[in-house]
Amino acid sequence: MSDPVFLKACRGESVDHVPVWFMRQAGRSLPEYRALRGSGSILEAIANPEVACEVTMQPVRRYGVDAAVLFSDIVVPYHAIGFGVDVVPGRGPVIAQPFTSSTDLARLRDLSDNDIAHVTQTVDLVVEQLSATNTPLIGFAGAPFTVASYLVEGAPTREFAVIKSLMHADPVLFDQLLDRLVDITVAFLRAQVAHGARALQLFDSWAGSLSRDEYRRFALPATQRVLDGVADLKVPTILFGVGTGELLPLMATAGSSVLGIDWHVDLDEGRRRAGKPIQGNLDPARCLAGVDLGVQAAREVLARAGREAGYIFNLGHGVLPATDPAVLEAIVRVVHEEGMAGVQ
Amino acid sequence: MSDPVFLKACRGESVDHVPVWFMRQAGRSLPEYRALRGSGSILEAIANPEVACEVTMQPVRRYGVDAAVLFSDIVVPYHAIGFGVDVVPGRGPVIAQPFTSSTDLARLRDLSDNDIAHVTQTVDLVVEQLSATNTPLIGFAGAPFTVASYLVEGAPTREFAVIKSLMHADPVLFDQLLDRLVDITVAFLRAQVAHGARALQLFDSWAGSLSRDEYRRFALPATQRVLDGVADLKVPTILFGVGTGELLPLMATAGSSVLGIDWHVDLDEGRRRAGKPIQGNLDPARCLAGVDLGVQAAREVLARAGREAGYIFNLGHGVLPATDPAVLEAIVRVVHEEGMAGVQ
Repeated sequence: MSDPVFLKACRGESVDHVPVWFMRQAGRSLPEYRALRGSGSILEAIANPEVACEVTMQPVRRYGVDAAVLFSDIVVPYHAIGFGVDVVPGRGPVIAQPFTSSTDLARLRDLSDNDIAHVTQTVDLVVEQLSATNTPLIGFAGAPFTVASYLVEGAPTREFAVIKSLMHADPVLFDQLLDRLVDITVAFLRAQVAHGARALQLFDSWAGSLSRDEYRRFALPATQRVLDGVADLKVPTILFGVGTGELLPLMATAGSSVLGIDWHVDLDEGRRRAGKPIQGNLDPARCLAGVDLGVQAAREVLARAGREAGYIFNLGHGVLPATDPAVLEAIVRVVHEEGMAGVQ
Repeated sequence: MSDPVFLKACRGESVDHVPVWFMRQAGRSLPEYRALRGSGSILEAIANPEVACEVTMQPVRRYGVDAAVLFSDIVVPYHAIGFGVDVVPGRGPVIAQPFTSSTDLARLRDLSDNDIAHVTQTVDLVVEQLSATNTPLIGFAGAPFTVASYLVEGAPTREFAVIKSLMHADPVLFDQLLDRLVDITVAFLRAQVAHGARALQLFDSWAGSLSRDEYRRFALPATQRVLDGVADLKVPTILFGVGTGELLPLMATAGSSVLGIDWHVDLDEGRRRAGKPIQGNLDPARCLAGVDLGVQAAREVLARAGREAGYIFNLGHGVLPATDPAVLEAIVRVVHEEGMAGVQ
């Protein structure tokens, strides 16, 4: 069986159609997800391999996307080692006792296979179901800076004031924190690949809060070490953050196969800055105004993507909860049919 | 009396020290402000010229900044014409009946002098107090797109999904809305200058939510018309938004004297994209970790500013409420003393 189009595009190889998947395609926006999960915690759903497998498969069946992405969350390994994380609906990850001093380093112990047995069981189940169609599964993790921002801030923030104060006031402690997160992240990613994930995405979602100088000093080195730590596995890697236009040339040096871009940067300019395959670019807000306008927005992205190889269609951030699945269905169809004109 | 340094820098003229002021220097972060205002609505404080004048003057006295900025809010003219706006503490502007259809256009009537008598009275009082030191007052308004986003969304948003749906689904109505906002904004700015404001800042705070194509089509033309509408007044104008790195070359065509930049873009790169005098660049979060780290952050900005004229020191967004005034005091001192080495 030939390599899936998604994996080829990650490597910059020519393909016969533009591959497409959506960040957060599994979950909130799907009625079949809401019917299955009810109102429990997302971490409970993730802890149940049968449920998590089913949620991972729902968008693959509905949309016919070119890749599955594991139903999980970037805080899962930290929840698993008992750091005290909860994901509050409508708010995001909340930490009972945020990271404040060197004594908290001991709370970030190494990740064992046993800690994440529920995750690797889910991967096993998903990979088996995907084998019939040769659809690849994308595993993922949070990049160290973004995870650190959650652990230090204690709750979602717009200003990142606490993490920035820590990095500038105590760079030694900040580096020690990121060292711990690198080890945990590498272990988490390797486990997913060991069980059959065929690509990895590293979410440095909040890297865009940093200046270029801060990114270069405080985020990039740890991200490089994570990517180095999985390089021998030979699976494509995607590095993504939002609001990262200024950072793309630096992020391009981190060692991923692909860079994810948001919608603030034009696709062709993002490709120039990345100098490697890219993924993304459709503003998720443009999927909220009906099928026709969603398709129009997708066509604008495809037009900028042009005929070059090395492009994976995706949103520039996660699917918004209010998104009508009919819009994403139509977008997948358009990308598969009309994106073909765009590749060699 | 010679022209104030701030005004000279706005025009790109050489100056003997780098001028500095802070967006939101008047208000939340000052203990003397909290003592004066108590817990009432910010719109009540703005409606009282004596209070608003005092709040405007507090940071001028405390910090010795090179410009005062009127204590006001971008929703003031819309509150004044009865659109039904409130500013909810800790949340921001909330609209009782958001703009949804063409029938709402009638609710955006022309602004009369009488509607904003409280604002022009405040300007009168402030200008009189500032005359002794020849310190200029900056008047301001929200740019049409940013105001439209508040009126249409009804409350602060991270996604801007409703305004984006409106602009793409009904561009005719969107344009009609922006037409009304242009007229109101021009009238509001002209009134401030008529009463003695010597510079104007136009806050397109949320322009950075847009793609370049969207900015070019849906935000830039209205901003250009506002700036055209005050051009004959011959006061310097500053156009500012946050997250606008990609947009700076387009914003540079809007006609302002100065472009404000945030901290995501390096100052020297921002200057290159703007091609005109610039203002800003210090991350407000870096003022939250004590005097030494705040001063260090300011020195990093000054180092990038170099020796070229046409730079006004400021934050890259408003002063955060938790900011210790001692940090801003120290930054003003450093900018005035050490910034001198940076200009010709």
